[in-house]
Amino acid sequence: MNITRTLAKFVVEHRASAIPQNVRHEAARSFLNWMGCAVGGSGHETVGSALAALAPFSGAPEATVLGRADRLDIMLAALMNGISSHTFDFDDTHLRTVIHPSGPVASAILALAERRPVSGEAFLHAFVLGVEVECRIGNAVYPEHYDVGWHITGTTGVFGAAAAAGRLLGLDEQQMTWALGIAATQSSGLREMFGTMCKPFHPGNAARNGLLAALLAQQNFTSSNEGIEAKRGFANVLSTSFKPEEIASRLGETWEIALNTYKPFACGIVIHPIIDACVQLRNEHGLKADDITAIEAKVHPLVLELTGKKTPQVGLEGKFSVYHSAAVAIIHGAAGEAEYGDDVVRDPQVVALRDRVTATVDKSMHEDQTRVTVRLKDGRTLEKFVEHAIGSLDRPMSDADLEAKFRGLAREILSDAETDRLIRMCWDIGKLADAAEVARASVPARR
Amino acid sequence: MNITRTLAKFVVEHRASAIPQNVRHEAARSFLNWMGCAVGGSGHETVGSALAALAPFSGAPEATVLGRADRLDIMLAALMNGISSHTFDFDDTHLRTVIHPSGPVASAILALAERRPVSGEAFLHAFVLGVEVECRIGNAVYPEHYDVGWHITGTTGVFGAAAAAGRLLGLDEQQMTWALGIAATQSSGLREMFGTMCKPFHPGNAARNGLLAALLAQQNFTSSNEGIEAKRGFANVLSTSFKPEEIASRLGETWEIALNTYKPFACGIVIHPIIDACVQLRNEHGLKADDITAIEAKVHPLVLELTGKKTPQVGLEGKFSVYHSAAVAIIHGAAGEAEYGDDVVRDPQVVALRDRVTATVDKSMHEDQTRVTVRLKDGRTLEKFVEHAIGSLDRPMSDADLEAKFRGLAREILSDAETDRLIRMCWDIGKLADAAEVARASVPARR
Repeated sequence: MNITRTLAKFVVEHRASAIPQNVRHEAARSFLNWMGCAVGGSGHETVGSALAALAPFSGAPEATVLGRADRLDIMLAALMNGISSHTFDFDDTHLRTVIHPSGPVASAILALAERRPVSGEAFLHAFVLGVEVECRIGNAVYPEHYDVGWHITGTTGVFGAAAAAGRLLGLDEQQMTWALGIAATQSSGLREMFGTMCKPFHPGNAARNGLLAALLAQQNFTSSNEGIEAKRGFANVLSTSFKPEEIASRLGETWEIALNTYKPFACGIVIHPIIDACVQLRNEHGLKADDITAIEAKVHPLVLELTGKKTPQVGLEGKFSVYHSAAVAIIHGAAGEAEYGDDVVRDPQVVALRDRVTATVDKSMHEDQTRVTVRLKDGRTLEKFVEHAIGSLDRPMSDADLEAKFRGLAREILSDAETDRLIRMCWDIGKLADAAEVARASVPARR
Repeated sequence: MNITRTLAKFVVEHRASAIPQNVRHEAARSFLNWMGCAVGGSGHETVGSALAALAPFSGAPEATVLGRADRLDIMLAALMNGISSHTFDFDDTHLRTVIHPSGPVASAILALAERRPVSGEAFLHAFVLGVEVECRIGNAVYPEHYDVGWHITGTTGVFGAAAAAGRLLGLDEQQMTWALGIAATQSSGLREMFGTMCKPFHPGNAARNGLLAALLAQQNFTSSNEGIEAKRGFANVLSTSFKPEEIASRLGETWEIALNTYKPFACGIVIHPIIDACVQLRNEHGLKADDITAIEAKVHPLVLELTGKKTPQVGLEGKFSVYHSAAVAIIHGAAGEAEYGDDVVRDPQVVALRDRVTATVDKSMHEDQTRVTVRLKDGRTLEKFVEHAIGSLDRPMSDADLEAKFRGLAREILSDAETDRLIRMCWDIGKLADAAEVARASVPARR
């Protein structure tokens, strides 16, 4: 079976009316959360640095840099919004693959929608299809592909962006097959970059390159017709295993976006159980840093693999430190963007407590579990077992939680009225006459 | 030892005056050959299709699309010139790695030079350094990296383009280290794409993305400092072996561009010995297709792996068919771009002879060797052993051969006077006051 063509045919032929209501609602939740992250990240130096480098090369300024007055051509806007939405590592997560699905897809098609007006209905449909494509490709190669060292959000995101943009461009089956092939041959992004500005660059670059793939295919720029499954195609070259049935089976019957989750904490998801446990222990027992002699966590192996930085020096590195995260959870009772500021990472009180945190791999722990033991100066020992971390599929954030998270992210950027309006438009994205309105609504009025 | 930083330091600190004369001359030969290929390919539908897709998004039209009146922003011009220069698969080859080194590097820095004027001396120096970077990285992972399925021109070209562009941008050592890291995390290009428009897309994309990497690094956009050698960096993720000493040893003492070669035939280098043998047999014996009952070649294993297409349908596929190539070598006595036209691939006489060609792997054959046996209707058997194919390091094309090849490529695009002038400027590239002059000299006057 030709996997790439099967997927292309599905994306080209699927009808919006066949998307179930719960899937639509989850898509709106994903989009809202993504928009909040993009607006929240828009003032970060990562975005500023990329803008300074690339704005001089922009074509017609047709698309919005979310949360900012800057406008860029659609490929650069896609890049920039993908970067800003992942800068805080606070966007959505498809838990089965640890893909952050919205960034590459939404960044590509929202920029495209500003050049080529499209209804909210068609936009939301393309968004769901793009997420389906990237997550199914992820399912087919995870975890081996990730274990090799690929940042799966970048490597699969380019397919999602190409599929969604290609759908909005009205590609036919052959063109969509080529678009997926052109995406395959741009698939990239290394886990080595975690903790640097290149991590958020990956979803941005996937958006930029996926859009490029769709635009090229629209002009009949050819690629292999088997870009995903061929002997020297994506799956075999970038992974040590490939389960093609994960891509081609039950297309249109199941929806990966329904499995999407949202982070209550502004860091890699593998540390969330520990933060959850520490915040709960702090609040239940009124803990202060000075009371504590040791914090010991039993963790899933990925925790140390991904977030084992013992002595982070800057905020971005703090997000890859289970030690820093546990310390701020105790001291501040939170792990939002503020708790990953450079100043907090260097705060002597945080550093001192961080050095008293140990984490040990316990293979009985699932990815959303931990057991945290806190030893106190007065001799007491406190313990908390987290079976499912807040933000997991079993304990999802509510719609109200997501709105509150959005408000926290947008606080420094938008007025309350602007935030209210933008939140409303995100919930209503599927009903807008012109989807691009929501991009323009993210720009703060001059004050 | 930190490989990435060592390489960055070398690129930043090396002095142009330390480049030996023979290396300069080989660099000019490489540049001349590259320019001819780019001009020759500039009218191809691959370039036309990419231009139609992307020109609407161009920023300030600061850079030349070689051989054409179109102008684009420097990143899109880099993409386009990388595409056109590899469209005929006729550009230079670093034989040890099968990298086509000039495309990614020259495309990136020639576009940059049109925005940021630079002397020919500095340009040629950056070109040599870029080629050094990509080929050393290639040496460190070849052949395993290629065997995995990576198109090594794309995957290493992005480093070469980043290094050369970064040198011309005046990056410091830290910024150059980041530029190489940003290149690493964009490294991509699958061998599955051979025979489609995506093959020439790879060097173009490497040029575009390498330039992007250098521009981002110039604004202190951070990446890993060990993008090449880290556990989850380029070499370990994209290859099953890594020889770091190939990158870091004897830097500045040996020059990879001195090992560059140029193709006399417009197809993959592995078929050149067979074409060479067939042309020689044809000319020595006045062979006609109808006289021949069978052509049997003993070949290196890569020949069938790379060029085993038995029934090519279009010109691009013909380049990946040892059978078609042997047939045109007998019938036309040549294998230039004309012999890979769609019409020639479908010519019944060519098809009939092609079907009488067999190729058998003989492990005693080196990559530039073959033994061809031709069986004739009159019962005779002719044989030709090619020890080193024309165009190999042992039988290089002369400067005059390269000029003749250039003229053949430019014939349909430029007037003879324009071609003469452009050839002269390519030879003198290292002496130009403004390197970008050579780009503008490639544009035909309106006629």
